[in-house]
Amino acid sequence: MSELPAQEPLVKEIPPKGADLSAWYTAVCLKAELVSYAPVRGCIVLRPHGFGLWENLQKELDARIKATGHENAYFPLLIPESLLNREAEHVEGFAPEVAWVTQGGQEKLEERLAIRPTSEVIIGVMYAKWIQSHRDLPVLINQWANIVRWEKATRPFLRTMEFLWQEGHTAHATAEEARTETEQMLGVYRDFAENVAAVPVYAGLKSASERFPGALETYSIEALMPDGKALQSATSHDLGQNFSRTYGIKFTDVDQQIKLAYTTSWGMSWRMLGAVIMVHGDDRGLQIPPKLAPIEAVIVPIVKGAETAPLEKARELAKTLRAVGFRIRVDERDRSPGFKYSDWEMRGVPVRIEIGPRDLAAGSVSLVRRDKQKGEDGSRVTAGFDAVAATLREQLDAVQDSLYARAKAFLESHTFAPADRATFFEQCKNRAGMIDIPWCNRPACETDVKNQTSATTRVMRELQQPGARCVACGEPAVVNAYFAQSY
Amino acid sequence: MSELPAQEPLVKEIPPKGADLSAWYTAVCLKAELVSYAPVRGCIVLRPHGFGLWENLQKELDARIKATGHENAYFPLLIPESLLNREAEHVEGFAPEVAWVTQGGQEKLEERLAIRPTSEVIIGVMYAKWIQSHRDLPVLINQWANIVRWEKATRPFLRTMEFLWQEGHTAHATAEEARTETEQMLGVYRDFAENVAAVPVYAGLKSASERFPGALETYSIEALMPDGKALQSATSHDLGQNFSRTYGIKFTDVDQQIKLAYTTSWGMSWRMLGAVIMVHGDDRGLQIPPKLAPIEAVIVPIVKGAETAPLEKARELAKTLRAVGFRIRVDERDRSPGFKYSDWEMRGVPVRIEIGPRDLAAGSVSLVRRDKQKGEDGSRVTAGFDAVAATLREQLDAVQDSLYARAKAFLESHTFAPADRATFFEQCKNRAGMIDIPWCNRPACETDVKNQTSATTRVMRELQQPGARCVACGEPAVVNAYFAQSY
Repeated sequence: MSELPAQEPLVKEIPPKGADLSAWYTAVCLKAELVSYAPVRGCIVLRPHGFGLWENLQKELDARIKATGHENAYFPLLIPESLLNREAEHVEGFAPEVAWVTQGGQEKLEERLAIRPTSEVIIGVMYAKWIQSHRDLPVLINQWANIVRWEKATRPFLRTMEFLWQEGHTAHATAEEARTETEQMLGVYRDFAENVAAVPVYAGLKSASERFPGALETYSIEALMPDGKALQSATSHDLGQNFSRTYGIKFTDVDQQIKLAYTTSWGMSWRMLGAVIMVHGDDRGLQIPPKLAPIEAVIVPIVKGAETAPLEKARELAKTLRAVGFRIRVDERDRSPGFKYSDWEMRGVPVRIEIGPRDLAAGSVSLVRRDKQKGEDGSRVTAGFDAVAATLREQLDAVQDSLYARAKAFLESHTFAPADRATFFEQCKNRAGMIDIPWCNRPACETDVKNQTSATTRVMRELQQPGARCVACGEPAVVNAYFAQSY
Repeated sequence: MSELPAQEPLVKEIPPKGADLSAWYTAVCLKAELVSYAPVRGCIVLRPHGFGLWENLQKELDARIKATGHENAYFPLLIPESLLNREAEHVEGFAPEVAWVTQGGQEKLEERLAIRPTSEVIIGVMYAKWIQSHRDLPVLINQWANIVRWEKATRPFLRTMEFLWQEGHTAHATAEEARTETEQMLGVYRDFAENVAAVPVYAGLKSASERFPGALETYSIEALMPDGKALQSATSHDLGQNFSRTYGIKFTDVDQQIKLAYTTSWGMSWRMLGAVIMVHGDDRGLQIPPKLAPIEAVIVPIVKGAETAPLEKARELAKTLRAVGFRIRVDERDRSPGFKYSDWEMRGVPVRIEIGPRDLAAGSVSLVRRDKQKGEDGSRVTAGFDAVAATLREQLDAVQDSLYARAKAFLESHTFAPADRATFFEQCKNRAGMIDIPWCNRPACETDVKNQTSATTRVMRELQQPGARCVACGEPAVVNAYFAQSY
């Protein structure tokens, strides 16, 4: 996918998704008013319709983070260079991406301040101060924050210089607890991706080359995009004692011994929204899963001349539906119904409710599903006034389920298990999808595959056939791994 | 109030509030674990108990901002210097406080980037791009964001280099609409301060010297602290056409003429929490108004030896109360009830629920209000198991009301209307409170008062006695103004 031009293009038509995913993606993000280009290199503005998606992601994910015992907090944006430099592997990983503050007001700073590229360092320093005893553990904290990483390329949501995310940071008394936490949060991300974003994923351990700088192990969830590339959608890191050793996170244990704590970190960013857009959208534009939709249903009154009854009914219905918790918009613009239908389809609103004079006379409304084609079975249902809420609930659930089922079918039909090396390399090179093989877990083998095909391991799981050999190199296999090219 | 030392002190005891408000404030903020000092000059960490306050502020204020028709969005953190420099008055006001990014990765930037000290500039540039026609107006957008202003002094919540806030930015077709919006949001802030934070305020127009750089008019809400100083708790600015002229926010009106839009901006930051802490706290520590309290009630099971019945009942009760929406904590720590009582009082939890073996036998629990002294009438009530939710609701409402009533009585008893110049100057100098006088609205008079007493005008309202003369200088009065020293 190509870099965005500095000047925002005026999008008149959305090009077909199948012809050029990159052009389609940029056009949809702009035309649906999810984002706008900012006059700062690499930055986007999240417009209200886009921010509405982010708010729903936040609401759903935050509830899951709290339900697993975490609390939110807020740590500083700026990190002194000397602190960042203490963890060698970590700083080596992030230094090329750091934006540096060197001047405050009229004053030239003695020490540069990094804008956080992630917060392990500043949070590690605070945990070292807060944690003294085993009674202080575990510490289970999450933060919603903005992050800056100096990137050349810009693709809305997928890669931007500044982005929004949440980052969880926990400290534990034992290695086992930290590992359990890391795996629990991977499960939370998977649950969110599949059950809220309707994006099926493969979840598992990353290979050494894909590990977070400073981590013992990194887990991730990986979604498959329509062009056959994988999108890493969230990560969860077991940091072992690496950060607690560097930043001095120690505690007196029950046995009176002073020990280093075990820490974890885990994050999901607005990148997840990029997956939602690419996975579900079609030639008509966005398709937003109902659970993330800022507008679950739009009501379009069909008004002719000076008639006001359909509009009044639309407003009344909106009030009724909002009162039971639905997110509803009434489109009162001075535009034709046809224009409005296309406009809201393009913006991905899951259900449209039409109210015309004939509907009024019949005491009913029509509900039209965004995920079906015009005329397709079940694309349009009629509901009596008293049954609109119940019917809307059914339709929204049906859209949520069908988007997931469709994406799941795509993932499954684009997951391959080649038996021989030639097929494996060819599938990797051609972006066939997720290529699942018994693998040797050797960096040299991974590098070889990458150099020849651009594909890398996405996640690993237990070896499925004991005794199998690595399909890529013929050495003994120790795991199964999904290979794919990736964003 | 003095600047915080760089090293965080260990707080063993909270000093009396009346003796030294500054020492009390710092001690309470640290001991209640609202904040912690960060290893970055001028920055604080908002710990979970402090962030819980912020989350409730956000939830309540965000609902009010949305109910008045605004949507949330997100704009970039970094602003190119050339854009910031375009609005001369604005940049002059903020330049001394800007943190500058001059390096990205290994690259030295050609143009410096400011970390936003406020977002009028970047939002103005985007509005110029988005707004073409009167059909695009009004634009009603709010942003929750972090802000950096290079400050020397640090006082938790009141003055920090980085802080969290919301900033609303709107654009309108007419001057009247913009003025109505500015006043509406002032009303929203007043409603929030009084009905959620239980902090009574004076609301009104600022004098010219206290205006936001670049604004036509600034309104604010002002609360009175226990030391007789005012705390500006939120502001709302009518920017007229100043920013739309500089950044080119133009639209084609109904009459086909191209016109400049009228814009507003308005903000409340975590500073409001500083007012909550200072206004309501006492010698025992924090008192949090129930509507902002992260924990509305703490349940303390009184367990002796191996007995588990009170703890089990506490857990069951917590479950029941959470199911109907209360924010509840069960204190299961291995500590004496007395320790727990003091600890939660210090943290400001509005109601404590005690469950001991005798309560269990009687089928009831005790509810103890934080806002009353031990033994005071109504400080402790008993409720049968089935009546706990209803009784807790009553007690929380009573605490909310009593905190407000107490603060209101303080404000009223510390508002003075001196008739003569000597008394006026003396009251200003002595920090008697809010000093209300008929005023000439002349900068020279204000400067004179400030030089002699350190007090400034806080807000103005209509002249209450037509024909009155300015109490400060004897010239004809045109408004009534509240004078006070301020944070």
